[in-house]
Amino acid sequence: VASESGKLWGGRFVGAVDPIMEKFNASIAYDRHLWEVDVQGSKAYSRGLEKAGLLTKAEMDQILHGLDKVAEEWAQGTFKLNPNDEDIHTANERRLKELIGETAGKLHTGRSRNDQVVTDLRLWMRQNCSALSALLRELIRTMVDRAEAERDILFPGYTHLQRAQPIRWSHWILSPVAFPLPPGPELNFGAVTLNSMDATSERDFVAEFLFWASLCMTHLSRMAEDLILYGTKEFNFVQLSDAYSTGSSLMPQKKNPDSLELIRSKAGRVFGRCAGLLMTLKGLPSTYNKDLQEDKEAVFEVSDTMSAVLQVATGVISTLQVRRENMAQALSPDMLATDLAYYLVRKGMPFRQAHEASGKAVFMAETKGVALNQLSLQELQNISPLFSGDVSQVWDYSHSVEQYTALGGTARSSVDWQIAQVRALLRAQQA
Amino acid sequence: VASESGKLWGGRFVGAVDPIMEKFNASIAYDRHLWEVDVQGSKAYSRGLEKAGLLTKAEMDQILHGLDKVAEEWAQGTFKLNPNDEDIHTANERRLKELIGETAGKLHTGRSRNDQVVTDLRLWMRQNCSALSALLRELIRTMVDRAEAERDILFPGYTHLQRAQPIRWSHWILSPVAFPLPPGPELNFGAVTLNSMDATSERDFVAEFLFWASLCMTHLSRMAEDLILYGTKEFNFVQLSDAYSTGSSLMPQKKNPDSLELIRSKAGRVFGRCAGLLMTLKGLPSTYNKDLQEDKEAVFEVSDTMSAVLQVATGVISTLQVRRENMAQALSPDMLATDLAYYLVRKGMPFRQAHEASGKAVFMAETKGVALNQLSLQELQNISPLFSGDVSQVWDYSHSVEQYTALGGTARSSVDWQIAQVRALLRAQQA
Amino acid sequence: VASESGKLWGGRFVGAVDPIMEKFNASIAYDRHLWEVDVQGSKAYSRGLEKAGLLTKAEMDQILHGLDKVAEEWAQGTFKLNPNDEDIHTANERRLKELIGETAGKLHTGRSRNDQVVTDLRLWMRQNCSALSALLRELIRTMVDRAEAERDILFPGYTHLQRAQPIRWSHWILSPVAFPLPPGPELNFGAVTLNSMDATSERDFVAEFLFWASLCMTHLSRMAEDLILYGTKEFNFVQLSDAYSTGSSLMPQKKNPDSLELIRSKAGRVFGRCAGLLMTLKGLPSTYNKDLQEDKEAVFEVSDTMSAVLQVATGVISTLQVRRENMAQALSPDMLATDLAYYLVRKGMPFRQAHEASGKAVFMAETKGVALNQLSLQELQNISPLFSGDVSQVWDYSHSVEQYTALGGTARSSVDWQIAQVRALLRAQQA
Amino acid sequence: VASESGKLWGGRFVGAVDPIMEKFNASIAYDRHLWEVDVQGSKAYSRGLEKAGLLTKAEMDQILHGLDKVAEEWAQGTFKLNPNDEDIHTANERRLKELIGETAGKLHTGRSRNDQVVTDLRLWMRQNCSALSALLRELIRTMVDRAEAERDILFPGYTHLQRAQPIRWSHWILSPVAFPLPPGPELNFGAVTLNSMDATSERDFVAEFLFWASLCMTHLSRMAEDLILYGTKEFNFVQLSDAYSTGSSLMPQKKNPDSLELIRSKAGRVFGRCAGLLMTLKGLPSTYNKDLQEDKEAVFEVSDTMSAVLQVATGVISTLQVRRENMAQALSPDMLATDLAYYLVRKGMPFRQAHEASGKAVFMAETKGVALNQLSLQELQNISPLFSGDVSQVWDYSHSVEQYTALGGTARSSVDWQIAQVRALLRAQQA
Repeated sequence: VASESGKLWGGRFVGAVDPIMEKFNASIAYDRHLWEVDVQGSKAYSRGLEKAGLLTKAEMDQILHGLDKVAEEWAQGTFKLNPNDEDIHTANERRLKELIGETAGKLHTGRSRNDQVVTDLRLWMRQNCSALSALLRELIRTMVDRAEAERDILFPGYTHLQRAQPIRWSHWILSPVAFPLPPGPELNFGAVTLNSMDATSERDFVAEFLFWASLCMTHLSRMAEDLILYGTKEFNFVQLSDAYSTGSSLMPQKKNPDSLELIRSKAGRVFGRCAGLLMTLKGLPSTYNKDLQEDKEAVFEVSDTMSAVLQVATGVISTLQVRRENMAQALSPDMLATDLAYYLVRKGMPFRQAHEASGKAVFMAETKGVALNQLSLQELQNISPLFSGDVSQVWDYSHSVEQYTALGGTARSSVDWQIAQVRALLRAQQA
Repeated sequence: VASESGKLWGGRFVGAVDPIMEKFNASIAYDRHLWEVDVQGSKAYSRGLEKAGLLTKAEMDQILHGLDKVAEEWAQGTFKLNPNDEDIHTANERRLKELIGETAGKLHTGRSRNDQVVTDLRLWMRQNCSALSALLRELIRTMVDRAEAERDILFPGYTHLQRAQPIRWSHWILSPVAFPLPPGPELNFGAVTLNSMDATSERDFVAEFLFWASLCMTHLSRMAEDLILYGTKEFNFVQLSDAYSTGSSLMPQKKNPDSLELIRSKAGRVFGRCAGLLMTLKGLPSTYNKDLQEDKEAVFEVSDTMSAVLQVATGVISTLQVRRENMAQALSPDMLATDLAYYLVRKGMPFRQAHEASGKAVFMAETKGVALNQLSLQELQNISPLFSGDVSQVWDYSHSVEQYTALGGTARSSVDWQIAQVRALLRAQQA
Repeated sequence: VASESGKLWGGRFVGAVDPIMEKFNASIAYDRHLWEVDVQGSKAYSRGLEKAGLLTKAEMDQILHGLDKVAEEWAQGTFKLNPNDEDIHTANERRLKELIGETAGKLHTGRSRNDQVVTDLRLWMRQNCSALSALLRELIRTMVDRAEAERDILFPGYTHLQRAQPIRWSHWILSPVAFPLPPGPELNFGAVTLNSMDATSERDFVAEFLFWASLCMTHLSRMAEDLILYGTKEFNFVQLSDAYSTGSSLMPQKKNPDSLELIRSKAGRVFGRCAGLLMTLKGLPSTYNKDLQEDKEAVFEVSDTMSAVLQVATGVISTLQVRRENMAQALSPDMLATDLAYYLVRKGMPFRQAHEASGKAVFMAETKGVALNQLSLQELQNISPLFSGDVSQVWDYSHSVEQYTALGGTARSSVDWQIAQVRALLRAQQA
Repeated sequence: VASESGKLWGGRFVGAVDPIMEKFNASIAYDRHLWEVDVQGSKAYSRGLEKAGLLTKAEMDQILHGLDKVAEEWAQGTFKLNPNDEDIHTANERRLKELIGETAGKLHTGRSRNDQVVTDLRLWMRQNCSALSALLRELIRTMVDRAEAERDILFPGYTHLQRAQPIRWSHWILSPVAFPLPPGPELNFGAVTLNSMDATSERDFVAEFLFWASLCMTHLSRMAEDLILYGTKEFNFVQLSDAYSTGSSLMPQKKNPDSLELIRSKAGRVFGRCAGLLMTLKGLPSTYNKDLQEDKEAVFEVSDTMSAVLQVATGVISTLQVRRENMAQALSPDMLATDLAYYLVRKGMPFRQAHEASGKAVFMAETKGVALNQLSLQELQNISPLFSGDVSQVWDYSHSVEQYTALGGTARSSVDWQIAQVRALLRAQQA
């Protein structure tokens, strides 16, 4: 098409070519990550062209051979980019032509780069999600291993960050393992061929991946928050390995949980990419628009982040020191106030009244400045005549956690069941 | 617990009670939407308590009967809220106690409001997602009906908003119907009972719903954008029904596509709710924190929005007037330049060379100021000797669209196949 | 304009009117909040029309009088909405016409509703931002009052949630008072009249308001996080007033910081509105599009939220109980390790070496299981011969905080200076 | 501090060091961009130490000289990073020590890296915002230059993408120039020294920068959207320079507005970074947490994006071809319907009645299939007797735009005034 003389009004000089625009437009700086799947996709496509009679067998073989050479160059780091290679497709096609001549030009029959890049990205993500799944399973497996080994350690369960009821430490470890899994291959390739316009246009598979990562990161950020708290001097339930801590350049005594803080922080970064993509998609005309080029850097950055986060989290969990004495000391009789209420329920009192009676006992103990289990039977009976000598059995933390035998509860049998469930899920996913 | 005398420093007066705090804390203004599922959940729970021996049969019957009365009052609009009814659970329990006395207090044995609200919300969403699915299917069905009836109308396909190749109008209609479906019941109840801490704490089912809605809205915003463009004086392909247009209070000749603009805009609102929830979740300590109360208003607003959007979109599509003559007139021979290249490919030229040759023809026609199909055979043969008399067959739009018979293509058979596929999916989902 | 017969294909029945569309389109449910500024704006506009000769003095007086009646009806709650009143402008104009007849029709000369709603919203926000500023100043004033009164209470300063150095409690109180202020009137009205297209189209003033609120909420969410932590059994530095706490329906001993958790959570909601608006704006064609109607609900909801949050935060701060003995007990000699390094710096050692020497002392104390200040002089001298008897002066927390006399430091003089600065800023803002 | 033997349960092997954690933790890959400001900051700091008596004059000189050498190495590309240089501060300090020996260790007296990085980033952003301001002014200047030169070209103004009223092309050009300016130096350094805890903790200056960029990008995305539409075959008002267009690899006739699409798309990316940072900040404990390390990559990426976008936008505007004949042909008499109403207003009819009368004329013309200005006087008088022969003066587009002489209007004088205003603002900002 016609060239032109450049600027009409104002602005810096603009000739036929604006180097800033060329860089702005080019994607090769990041879509080179797709070299392998681009070659794979082109090989599959050339086989399709041969089947459709658009390539002879000999041409196909020539192309397949040439593509293998291209891949070899990438793998060995000898592929040389030209300044005009604006994207990975252009680069690979250009190199193929250098290697096998004009036949290379037949490969792109009926295929636009818009089609090609979608195929490449889907292929890349299928491989990548599979790798991330394996890392996620490794994290979960590490957590389940600990949960199994440390099943007899008790410590306070919290709600609203206030001490609530005694639980098993394993119960905490198991609570966040319901991490969502990355989108599987079936999701990625479901809608591909239904409509050719939609195929180059929709990026649901990218958005779903970014959202999966965002949601997964909110789980991890919450787990990190708990561990940061449990690692403070004040809670002092766990100690982070030195490998995952950092000292202070100012304060010699400090040891900071940088690994956990970074995990927590990445929730923002990952979600920001998801938000950015959705905003980019909003209100776009249908089919391909160059705006869609924003998808790849988001995917690559989020994949890298997830990979690092999952591995660091696994390292943190696998090397964490648990301070079981501090955990035990943090249990206090007032955390059994609910059990005290249940005691009355078992004696026939409706729960709401029992809750109130137990609340009175808590208040009485606070007022007298004694622990809840130090109220005398007489004092308890002033609150309700249903109290009798067997109330002393309430003051046993192990007994308390063993009460909750329902699915998902804190009883040992229930925790064992959870462990078995998660292990079964892990096996199923691996298969 | 002990009351207190109030403010120590500064601030407005604060006694034992701060009315702004009470309103800030209360959720009854919106969680009253849950009245029906709250009663349903409590009925199921009381049956569970009876099975576990925590309620007698008689007590259970009394409670079930009382809960039916409570539901009846809500349904008839006679339920009276008290100022102390801070949430729907408190309100229903309070009323139950008024109706059946102290036995009501037994219903809440072993159940916190944190558990209860999660169960309620899951139940509500299961019903609601089912209703939204039905509305979405109705929209898709309407689109498929049109696609089937208007299969023979051709118009320009666009990429980058530039005219690309001729397509069937039905091909456009079918392109956005790959709407994602709302999360189904299996997703909602999957992880419920695995871990009791996690059960009250995680809001994946809410986040996934909000994300589904966000993603669905990006699709709808893009469809709306296309239709707004197609309805401009400049494109003039479609005319919106008066029922979905609005006039101008200033300019008498205006008719504005307000319905479509509102659909487009709601993508922002819905995604904003998704972003808000994820930010609220980020870094929260595990188990229940009051922060989680933010989930419900987001769900209710997004549900209402989706319901309105889907119905309005269905109305817009079902009443849209298509201007087939304008569509036909918008087709021009340069949109067949790709077909011209394929003509050369069929004569044996590699696609890249053919693309270049066709580009030369386009440039020649532009330079001479004629349509592409008005170049003489002689002129074409100057570009490539492979051109011969049968090139005239290229200049047929119907023939052009019929070439693309692959899955997802523009050929009639391919469009018919798409229609059949979507209808089959609709039937499967309904079942 | 021509009416029409309705649905062509599929979908529910659609006649000339779709009630769901009418509700979807109407804004009266929320823009009625603008009644007062709408009347104010119309009064100003009618004065402008009279000046421009488009209204006679008598007509203007009639209109002004009529508008006052309209306002009176709104104020007294007697204004009756008609089903056709789709927005506040239509409602007020309709009512004006009923009151004064055809002259009402002259008021809208040269003014579209697109202009009108922008003016209304700017006026409303100017008043509202002024009210929010006052609430924010009240919060800051409360904090400064406490900071001044409790200046002598010391407690641990934290970084990475690990104990760092002793600070004054007031230093903590003052740290978040650098809240950003809501956009002032000058920002709101800056660009109004420069370009008529831009005036109806840009919503910077809305976006800036929503962003201010988001940023302000991140500050408040961080302050809430600190106070939630300080209120745990483990930190136990502060106790929240009962007025800002809530009990548990299950656990009688619990007292939960619901107020602070709600404050923390609202950061998500508010930012979600900001994100939603920006997404709605992205890629919109210039001038007015109905998409812009999304601005108002965002503004109203965020205003209400900010108003409640600021008042509750003020209440929380003004009634908070500080446990100064617990704060004092939480100080430990290792927090003076930096001071120990400075001691060596004062003796001539470069800071990096001193940091290392102090680190060795910390490690030695840890290894021996003693407090840092319990190492003997001999032991210290083994680390560095620069240690001498005067090292004992290091072990004084009050002395430690008094060292930091630079701007922003922890010395009493520095804290006093901060208090004075903030008070001066408050006075300046109020004026 | 004590080392440890590594993994306890599960996970990959973890020794004293985890290389993935080291990379995860290190910021040198991106904060090396700060080398220049880091040296500047350290030079200023060493002068401060000398003033405070913590360095001798000779030591200060030695440090200053050493820092100059460090800077020289960076500038010449000879600075060699060590594997242990985890951030720019560590790298520069390590190198300084190699160059000048132990005195280097005195530089960091009383300064943590948390302080240092904030100072560095503020300095960097001050310089960077100044550069972005200059690029933004260049864009505005280019737009104003065009607006001045093309002041006499008329074309349709749109609302809701429907033709509204004739406007000057310059009026469109000027409509988006109210771009917000990047935060100035005064904003950046306002709150620095008020409170030392807050100084290392708050990132308002980063958030405000990211929000400025987001808001600026929404403006640019809307300008890009308009130009993309105006460049379609259907509107055909402008033609993009080849330097800012791209061809299709499939369709030889295509010329796509990639530059504008990329500009539009970047609004998502930039806002995503803003969203990510705010989410990261939400609910963080006060003072420094490693989470804050997320600020820098966001700032660097957004700065680079803004720089490219502003330059490309300037290039696009300065080389855009305007098709004035097409613009003229797009004007049609129905766009003067508002003027027709004003005609009646000038004859004494209230605007609402006049609007209705003009609407009847539009409908009559549509029904008869003629242009609005082809209705006979007789026909108009059937609508209102106020019509007379002078109505013919309404049908003049130039006359129409000249009517709007108010501030911000379309009259030539008003456009000239806008141009003068913007030029004055540009001069003021430059100074």
